[in-house]
Amino acid sequence: MGQQGDTGAPATGERVGARPGRPPLRAARDAAGGRAGVAARAAARPTPDGAAGAAGVGGAAGARAITVPGPAAATGAPAAGAAPTTAGTGPGAAAGDVLGAYLHTEATGFLRSLRVHGESAGSPEAAAEATAAVLQLRRSARRMSGALHTYRPLVDTGWADHLRTELSWLSGTLAREYAYAARLDRLLAALHRLASDGSGPGFAPAGKGGTAAGGALPVGAARAGALLERQLTLARTRAHSAALQALGSSRFHAVADAVAVLASEAPIAPDTDGRTAEEVLPPLAEAARRRLNDAVDMLPLARAEHPYNAEALSRSLAAEVQGDTSWHQVRLLLRLHRYAQEVLLRMDADEGDAADAEQPPAPDAAGTARTRRGAGGPHGPDGHARAAVDPYADQRLAPASRALDRHRDAAEAASAAASAARTPRIAPATAYALGVLHADQRHEVEAARFAFGRLWTARTGERGGTR
Amino acid sequence: MGQQGDTGAPATGERVGARPGRPPLRAARDAAGGRAGVAARAAARPTPDGAAGAAGVGGAAGARAITVPGPAAATGAPAAGAAPTTAGTGPGAAAGDVLGAYLHTEATGFLRSLRVHGESAGSPEAAAEATAAVLQLRRSARRMSGALHTYRPLVDTGWADHLRTELSWLSGTLAREYAYAARLDRLLAALHRLASDGSGPGFAPAGKGGTAAGGALPVGAARAGALLERQLTLARTRAHSAALQALGSSRFHAVADAVAVLASEAPIAPDTDGRTAEEVLPPLAEAARRRLNDAVDMLPLARAEHPYNAEALSRSLAAEVQGDTSWHQVRLLLRLHRYAQEVLLRMDADEGDAADAEQPPAPDAAGTARTRRGAGGPHGPDGHARAAVDPYADQRLAPASRALDRHRDAAEAASAAASAARTPRIAPATAYALGVLHADQRHEVEAARFAFGRLWTARTGERGGTR
Repeated sequence: MGQQGDTGAPATGERVGARPGRPPLRAARDAAGGRAGVAARAAARPTPDGAAGAAGVGGAAGARAITVPGPAAATGAPAAGAAPTTAGTGPGAAAGDVLGAYLHTEATGFLRSLRVHGESAGSPEAAAEATAAVLQLRRSARRMSGALHTYRPLVDTGWADHLRTELSWLSGTLAREYAYAARLDRLLAALHRLASDGSGPGFAPAGKGGTAAGGALPVGAARAGALLERQLTLARTRAHSAALQALGSSRFHAVADAVAVLASEAPIAPDTDGRTAEEVLPPLAEAARRRLNDAVDMLPLARAEHPYNAEALSRSLAAEVQGDTSWHQVRLLLRLHRYAQEVLLRMDADEGDAADAEQPPAPDAAGTARTRRGAGGPHGPDGHARAAVDPYADQRLAPASRALDRHRDAAEAASAAASAARTPRIAPATAYALGVLHADQRHEVEAARFAFGRLWTARTGERGGTR
Repeated sequence: MGQQGDTGAPATGERVGARPGRPPLRAARDAAGGRAGVAARAAARPTPDGAAGAAGVGGAAGARAITVPGPAAATGAPAAGAAPTTAGTGPGAAAGDVLGAYLHTEATGFLRSLRVHGESAGSPEAAAEATAAVLQLRRSARRMSGALHTYRPLVDTGWADHLRTELSWLSGTLAREYAYAARLDRLLAALHRLASDGSGPGFAPAGKGGTAAGGALPVGAARAGALLERQLTLARTRAHSAALQALGSSRFHAVADAVAVLASEAPIAPDTDGRTAEEVLPPLAEAARRRLNDAVDMLPLARAEHPYNAEALSRSLAAEVQGDTSWHQVRLLLRLHRYAQEVLLRMDADEGDAADAEQPPAPDAAGTARTRRGAGGPHGPDGHARAAVDPYADQRLAPASRALDRHRDAAEAASAAASAARTPRIAPATAYALGVLHADQRHEVEAARFAFGRLWTARTGERGGTR
């Protein structure tokens, strides 16, 4: 399972270049002017020296050029009217406006992260900032991609599918080096858990050739750690180079331009004009929910909920895949469902919530908005939309989502251990340690399935026959 | 954890040879006459040809010579009076009589198993019979040893401790070859679960060089299986030779003689004369229960009951023992508690139950006896004894006991895999497969701890503050 499919949906995107024409994209780009592209390009350029100063100047300028209301919202200025698409998201708003407002928020967040990343990527001191920026960028990219997938009938489909493919490519390319680093951390931590004799004063990373003070590893585990470090560091370095190369490519600038268009005005399909959000959005969100439920129904949940079922490790000496794919698929569908719900929450948001909406719509923030509405009285949409939204269910789905993230991470770490064990000419003790490590991560996989099963059953149990 | 400590109690036995004297044993042996020893010797001698015929003649003769009531009970003849010690086990019986009756039953079962084993050990066709006989022999040995441990103040302690040591030696020696065979089976089954690609029509043992039809293993798993088979088969063969040698030793004949004495008349300490069972036995059983509860309290049960706590695998690359010892200790104490309860049930048994008592006192049988008594009205001992007996708790403890057996088996299998991986000059793929196998068995260990924790907590939860 690569990082490619990570922006939120099964790959259905087609390259728009093969399609007859793309008038909405062209039209939108013309409307927003060429300056958006210029600003994005400026933001993406690394600024090794004076990063902070550049952030204050170039960043704000770039934001203003593409009418990004982010900084204004952050300083408490009224957000209404800051961008055309944030207007009219109250009750009875047009479907296109609600979706546009959501896409606008995420596009703005994406461009802001891109700017921060560009400022910090070159300087070693700002590595943490760059990491956070990539996280935020991927978060926004997933949401844009997810919303474009679920509410595809509302937008120009060719344009949307192309953008989703490109978002997936960009965020995957930027994320890969971090994924390798995280995988190495996970495997070395597991090795220490497996191999330390408990005599040391605390955890010491095996990074220094496996002979770190306080946790000297047995020779097999130390060598396994060193081997994994060599292999994953090499992969990480390559991924880093690829990311730098991507940031200088014309393909990257095209994505940044397209997202800038989205921040300015989403290319809503003409035939949704006049139809209200309450009429159009809930059925599409419901379809996303149904796809998720159908996929979960196909999982061996009954078995997964039985602790120590030994399922995830079975056949792991024979092949790499032990039914992981269907779980990874559910992970993506669960995300799509959550982002579809976030759009519905936006439909629910009245004018007073517009400022909140500028924040990245975390599940908690969404829940708070809903709670406030509930206290203010029922002046929201009809019962149909209410049933479709259910932010509490979403809050409960966040841990389920995290369990599936853990499932994916552990599965990939197990694969990395197995793959390292196939290195020619390693010592038997090294291979043995990698075998134990592989099994350990496969049991993490099983534990994650167990956790997901429990969460899912508890949720559907509470909701009764809603499914 | 070897098989040595397997007859039911932490080793407290001292070799009686080092003690000043052993008059009760000598006296008892004189009282029973030399014929018991002769009969046991005859029974233990392998009869390669005409095993069935020899069973009918030699077996019955041997049984009669040492006044074993087993066959008589089996044919429905009244058991009362068949041996002096089975008399007077009803309400208000003397403590020594109750304990003596229990020891008599188990000693009889032991000698019967020894006879069957001697008849079947030499012939390949009767391998299943020999296996069953060893199981039953060990079962009886554990119970004798356990009762002698818990109710030690009632017997001549030097004699009892010596007999316990010798029973442990004998049943350990006879059992070892079966333990190796079971360990190999467990490991090969696990390898197939781990390595088969699921394409085969069913389970096929890896025994034939790992290339059995229907489940061709990948090369690493196949080699690991072959290596384990070589090592454990060699160990098994050696254990078999050692068992045969033991059966011809004077040490063996001394044990058989001592058990024959027990079947005839247990050497009860003189100072218990006249004290009733209800007065003496429950406090001793309660002490056994307390030792068990204290040991369980020391276990990390809260952690064990949290599924996928990854405890059992931690540090498994560093050392062999991951806190297994305390669990093994609880396993032995749980057994002692169960056998102590069985003696109390015997105290509870009236004359009508004497025939039942000739059967090996399985937990189910004990429960049935108790139920029948409950239906017949309260004509049993006082409330104190009733609280101490609690056969229902014992029924619930049997699965807990099995969970700890599984814990021990998996821990030893994991050790065997780790030890095989230390074989010089094995291929990395073999070592890798053994690492996965080791981790798999350590997770079985964790699963067994989880199961025990659940069972124990459910039991103490129901019983409330009884502890």
